[in-house]
Amino acid sequence: MINSKRALTATTVMGIFDDTEDPHPNTRLEAFCDGVFAIALTLLIIDIKVPASEAIRSTRELWLALKHLAPSFFAFLLSFAIILIAWVNHHRFLRVVNKSSGSFVYANGFLLMTVVFMPFPAALVGEYLLTDHAAPAVVLYNSVTAVQGLAWILVTGAALRNRLTKDEKSAVLVRDGHRSGYFAFVIYSLLALIAVWFPLAVVIVTTMLWAYWLTFSLRAA
Amino acid sequence: MINSKRALTATTVMGIFDDTEDPHPNTRLEAFCDGVFAIALTLLIIDIKVPASEAIRSTRELWLALKHLAPSFFAFLLSFAIILIAWVNHHRFLRVVNKSSGSFVYANGFLLMTVVFMPFPAALVGEYLLTDHAAPAVVLYNSVTAVQGLAWILVTGAALRNRLTKDEKSAVLVRDGHRSGYFAFVIYSLLALIAVWFPLAVVIVTTMLWAYWLTFSLRAA
Amino acid sequence: MINSKRALTATTVMGIFDDTEDPHPNTRLEAFCDGVFAIALTLLIIDIKVPASEAIRSTRELWLALKHLAPSFFAFLLSFAIILIAWVNHHRFLRVVNKSSGSFVYANGFLLMTVVFMPFPAALVGEYLLTDHAAPAVVLYNSVTAVQGLAWILVTGAALRNRLTKDEKSAVLVRDGHRSGYFAFVIYSLLALIAVWFPLAVVIVTTMLWAYWLTFSLRAA
Amino acid sequence: MINSKRALTATTVMGIFDDTEDPHPNTRLEAFCDGVFAIALTLLIIDIKVPASEAIRSTRELWLALKHLAPSFFAFLLSFAIILIAWVNHHRFLRVVNKSSGSFVYANGFLLMTVVFMPFPAALVGEYLLTDHAAPAVVLYNSVTAVQGLAWILVTGAALRNRLTKDEKSAVLVRDGHRSGYFAFVIYSLLALIAVWFPLAVVIVTTMLWAYWLTFSLRAA
Repeated sequence: MINSKRALTATTVMGIFDDTEDPHPNTRLEAFCDGVFAIALTLLIIDIKVPASEAIRSTRELWLALKHLAPSFFAFLLSFAIILIAWVNHHRFLRVVNKSSGSFVYANGFLLMTVVFMPFPAALVGEYLLTDHAAPAVVLYNSVTAVQGLAWILVTGAALRNRLTKDEKSAVLVRDGHRSGYFAFVIYSLLALIAVWFPLAVVIVTTMLWAYWLTFSLRAA
Repeated sequence: MINSKRALTATTVMGIFDDTEDPHPNTRLEAFCDGVFAIALTLLIIDIKVPASEAIRSTRELWLALKHLAPSFFAFLLSFAIILIAWVNHHRFLRVVNKSSGSFVYANGFLLMTVVFMPFPAALVGEYLLTDHAAPAVVLYNSVTAVQGLAWILVTGAALRNRLTKDEKSAVLVRDGHRSGYFAFVIYSLLALIAVWFPLAVVIVTTMLWAYWLTFSLRAA
Repeated sequence: MINSKRALTATTVMGIFDDTEDPHPNTRLEAFCDGVFAIALTLLIIDIKVPASEAIRSTRELWLALKHLAPSFFAFLLSFAIILIAWVNHHRFLRVVNKSSGSFVYANGFLLMTVVFMPFPAALVGEYLLTDHAAPAVVLYNSVTAVQGLAWILVTGAALRNRLTKDEKSAVLVRDGHRSGYFAFVIYSLLALIAVWFPLAVVIVTTMLWAYWLTFSLRAA
Repeated sequence: MINSKRALTATTVMGIFDDTEDPHPNTRLEAFCDGVFAIALTLLIIDIKVPASEAIRSTRELWLALKHLAPSFFAFLLSFAIILIAWVNHHRFLRVVNKSSGSFVYANGFLLMTVVFMPFPAALVGEYLLTDHAAPAVVLYNSVTAVQGLAWILVTGAALRNRLTKDEKSAVLVRDGHRSGYFAFVIYSLLALIAVWFPLAVVIVTTMLWAYWLTFSLRAA
């Protein structure tokens, strides 16, 4: 569907609309991102598998089987919170951005990819958290959130470089977000590294970090 | 992607927009919620598994296999009705709310979590309803609807506490909804408790409650 | 989450908005329906399972395994076309409706349920079409489209009974759609019945009916 | 749900709206397409299966199991990029189209079908890429992108034939896109053919083509 001629065309199309005064150039990007966030959230549930009825012979066994799903429920809750907070941040961020550019759209696409990928490490953590080989699951989980920090650097960076924010006040806020992206990238990369040796400790720290942030964000608002 | 500095930033971003006159601050929240409701509804179907063709050798056996799926079809219908009614309520509720706040957004996120979780207990009820160890499935199912009542208390509570409603008339309605949330929380918690001993009876009562509500809501409208 | 008091509340909420002049009362209903249609369409693909690589030892065997999926591809295409046409009709229909009511919203919910259910009979047809016990799959498939006709009768009926259309011209069109709903209900019920004895013939007739309609609709437009 | 009478009705409904001045006739089509693109993107992840914990007895084995998923991760990334680029193109394209027609809507539906189908060949490539019978997977994958080129020809063709573009300038751009559709169709059909003998080489060329396009589009923007 694509070749260099077409690349040129698409760019020209975009070029044209950069000079016209489209008051809401990000409406459809927002709607698309909302859709992806919403689906990623919802897909988290399909990785919690119902225990097969053939293997269960009593009420007690079913209770036990549900108890064994505890790490999956935990991974569901943590990942739901992470994606929800990412959505809230994205939502707030796009409110101060009123222009668009090619690299901005693709940086958002990259951010979405890290969100869409989330259900996989979440399911992995659910399956392996309480075994004695949880390390790879936790390393992958924290790596994905680290890459999400990287995506956030790219998204805010594109907004700053292409001057897409509403005014100087907005730019200051986006610049703060940009710095936080670096901070998040470093923190989660470190946690991913430490998880090679101490997966459970890293899960606890990660959960506390997100719980703190959720509480803080709730109280401040 | 997150740390205390970033928390501050996000809050400031939001703060800015609280003073500007955004006439529809909830448009994107609505769209996001709609997406989650729509996907949760649709995911209900993927837990009804097609009987494997290897095990079926005649038309009669396929009819029987489909008949054995009856509890799954029932769980699909009940859960579809519950999520649809929740959507209709949410839809009507957001029409009288024209402002937003951080705790309001997160309370909505919590409500969405209870909706997204629904397909799991629904599949569980589908798998275990007609066995003699249905109790855990029904307890979980009614617990999730009880927690949904709790989420409704938080959502309406945030709307009232932060004065997000359009006018005093709207506030009265939201206050009624708030009280109903408490009522629902108590009823479904009780039903979840009773289901430990009488799962089938609780399923019948739950179904009748929702059928009554659906009929009432339809006739009144 | 629900009781008679709450039912009253919700109705009052709705009542209020019936007197105010909301110029687009169906915007959120449209968005919600769009979401459900879009997801139902997309979920059709997950019932086509990739052949397990353990059972495949040569390129020829993989080609054969893909060939055995032919009925699943066929069921995917037919169901995609049916849901797409249903969406186009729904899309055109909502353009002449500019008011809303409780029974209209719930009738739409019922229509959505028949759409959401589609992937199950589609997967069933994919699995059993070329076996000699295809009857139950085809009966179910045509029953679901018959119930979809019924849902269409309810949706258009609610629009007519509650006078939700824009003007008299629109009402005439909706009345025509209402009649077509009855026609579709009868046709697909008959086909479902005949499928008990002649499943393959019914599949061919069903496919031709939809192909005809698609061609007609395309040429006429 | 459908018959010739109803076909007539639907067409008339549409006819009416062709004369009225609906300033944004494609808003709901856009929203619907966005939904489908977003879901297709997100469904790519559910084909990467978590390794079953029963078969894994050490951290090393889990690392190995994850390493074996490498082709699935690759197929996820490539398909995500393809669908994202398709969305960006569709997004830019619809901005220069401000009218609608029946064949335009159905051509878009056909494009969506090729997008929705994507997760299946992607999962197939993930499962078979590193076996010595990868050919059918790669042939199917490139065939689907070739058919996507065809869909693009139909969509742009309908826009041109029915004069749906904003102005002459827009028409020139759509005409370029139309030509690129033919180009893409030919290239990917050829690649699909060559993949019968050299599947791995074709995967490398395909990846490079998309990487080139992504870089080009990003730099140009």
